[in-house]
Amino acid sequence: MKHTRTEKILENCGELDAIVFINGTEPCLDMGFFYVTELVEGLFEGGLAIVYPDGSLEVVTSLLEAESAKKGDFEISVFKTKAERKEITKEKISKFKKIGINAQGLLHKNYLDLKELFPDIEFVDISESVSKARMIKDDKEIDTLKSACKMVSEVAEDIVDFIKEGILEYEVAAELSYMMQKKGAVGPSFDTISSFGKNTAEPHYTAGDAVLKKGEFVLLDFGAKYRRYCSDITRTFVCGGGSDKHKDMYETILKAQKLALDKIKPGVNGKDVHQAVSDFIEGTKYKGLFTHSTGHSIGLSVHDGPAVTKEVDVILEENMVFTVEPGIYISGYGGVRIEDDVRVTKDGVEILTWGTKELIEV
Amino acid sequence: MKHTRTEKILENCGELDAIVFINGTEPCLDMGFFYVTELVEGLFEGGLAIVYPDGSLEVVTSLLEAESAKKGDFEISVFKTKAERKEITKEKISKFKKIGINAQGLLHKNYLDLKELFPDIEFVDISESVSKARMIKDDKEIDTLKSACKMVSEVAEDIVDFIKEGILEYEVAAELSYMMQKKGAVGPSFDTISSFGKNTAEPHYTAGDAVLKKGEFVLLDFGAKYRRYCSDITRTFVCGGGSDKHKDMYETILKAQKLALDKIKPGVNGKDVHQAVSDFIEGTKYKGLFTHSTGHSIGLSVHDGPAVTKEVDVILEENMVFTVEPGIYISGYGGVRIEDDVRVTKDGVEILTWGTKELIEV
Repeated sequence: MKHTRTEKILENCGELDAIVFINGTEPCLDMGFFYVTELVEGLFEGGLAIVYPDGSLEVVTSLLEAESAKKGDFEISVFKTKAERKEITKEKISKFKKIGINAQGLLHKNYLDLKELFPDIEFVDISESVSKARMIKDDKEIDTLKSACKMVSEVAEDIVDFIKEGILEYEVAAELSYMMQKKGAVGPSFDTISSFGKNTAEPHYTAGDAVLKKGEFVLLDFGAKYRRYCSDITRTFVCGGGSDKHKDMYETILKAQKLALDKIKPGVNGKDVHQAVSDFIEGTKYKGLFTHSTGHSIGLSVHDGPAVTKEVDVILEENMVFTVEPGIYISGYGGVRIEDDVRVTKDGVEILTWGTKELIEV
Repeated sequence: MKHTRTEKILENCGELDAIVFINGTEPCLDMGFFYVTELVEGLFEGGLAIVYPDGSLEVVTSLLEAESAKKGDFEISVFKTKAERKEITKEKISKFKKIGINAQGLLHKNYLDLKELFPDIEFVDISESVSKARMIKDDKEIDTLKSACKMVSEVAEDIVDFIKEGILEYEVAAELSYMMQKKGAVGPSFDTISSFGKNTAEPHYTAGDAVLKKGEFVLLDFGAKYRRYCSDITRTFVCGGGSDKHKDMYETILKAQKLALDKIKPGVNGKDVHQAVSDFIEGTKYKGLFTHSTGHSIGLSVHDGPAVTKEVDVILEENMVFTVEPGIYISGYGGVRIEDDVRVTKDGVEILTWGTKELIEV
């Protein structure tokens, strides 16, 4: 087997005897563990993935997940008890002097336990290398992401027929999940945001029991999880005839998104993409109302690495995948956000999610 | 305001200048942060909750979640940039000498950043106290859990009519999510397990595209997330007429579950509940096939504290809430698991999920 993913990580790590991924407990699972193992089923709480300098891989798993682990292309060791887990861990790594750990996915408690067990081993945070490797998607990842993006794009188109005056936020959220899962998604990639009216001004709202009324924005932000990979899309509609204010807010954000899409290509700094969007919005009457980043890397996690934002230097490279999602929010009134997922291509972007960009009236 | 939750945590912490919860990044959110803040909406990535020795609370949040944070009953400080976050953090905690941290919910990277910023502060892991406080649910938590349990119990009953020979695993999973969300769940509390036939032998399978055939087990393990609290239920059915083998496996697990339910009451060690279940199954022809714990604490996380298992001492107390879920798994054939959520009462258990326990044929 070729160990391309582990080799990508090791490339930037300096000399190490091994890298150890220690998976946490739900909801704190280390996506680094799943990145290297490529395991699609199972939680693997307390599981270990040990990467050796030649790129080869070994997995230590509880008996509970042994059946799922067999689908991987690596040696596995199975423990039945915590004591056995400790023994196997000792057997595997006590001989090492310097071990890489993925601090961005590792629970501090698991680190403390490790340090107690191996006080003489030097543990080095190699999470930057993991993040860097994960940022550039391989062919298999891109295919999977495309499938996840296709699901939400189709659902975003179909949901329009379902939304009517009088419907409740959580009914729309339910329908979104249903439609995604009927297309093969394992589930939503995050808690679906289905917000109406003034709730649309709260960017990380989920879904309550507000009733849709004429003249209100409908903001839906949802994603499909497919073979552990996440898509993430936002569409904003208006119920009944949109007012000039609705249309103006929407047009502003549509322009802002286009501006970002036009700017993205290899070699550009994500920070500059954000700056362009921010400068544009700051030059409109919506100054100060764009309160988040322009986007974020997406993959095994919804927030899968650096954001496209003011303080983050990220030089775009081919096969990075980001969301592009400017938004503006007027407290007590409502908000607009338009979000698509894009892959950086050799000379621009491939938009992985699709759908009409007109302000749709429902 | 009374700060009962923070006081419950502080009780077991020893002397501290403060406790700081630092929330991670999706999917690694610290449920301790949400336990003390009681915030129902929002992700609060990078947010801080600072608990003072008098039990009072302050929250530091990004502008993105400021709107959501206002719903909490505490002072908030808002940052727009990472630099501002650092400044506010310094202002709030640099004066302290000894700070408690929740290592079981804290990303090691966030700890490293904290330690770099405050090399002279002593950080003490107080996660055992957080876990202990969270184990005993207060009235509000019990009400919320009951709502989440009601949703899945009703869905478990209704899904029976939907499952027919020829249906696909993921279609059933989609229907389960839909039904839960139509009842007001924010979403599933974990990736729904919808498995047929030999896939039912894989305890942490999710849902694939297997087609249901006569003579196969159907194992559904799903939960509703409601106001951040999780329920978790498993039902096993059989398609067409169940064979003697199906019935025998099912009856064995039903007996095992009853045995556990009869044993649970305050003062009993969870370990002994597990031992009784394990001894019983080991005495049947299914020896060696019960590969996981009898249950786990449930609350803000699906796996919310100690498991009911061999190596864990947990003395049951009133208002602890656990799953009770024995199972047996025959590789290549199939598995049976029956799971309910229960509250420990003054002298026994209250079963929060319900439904018939006969082996239902679909």
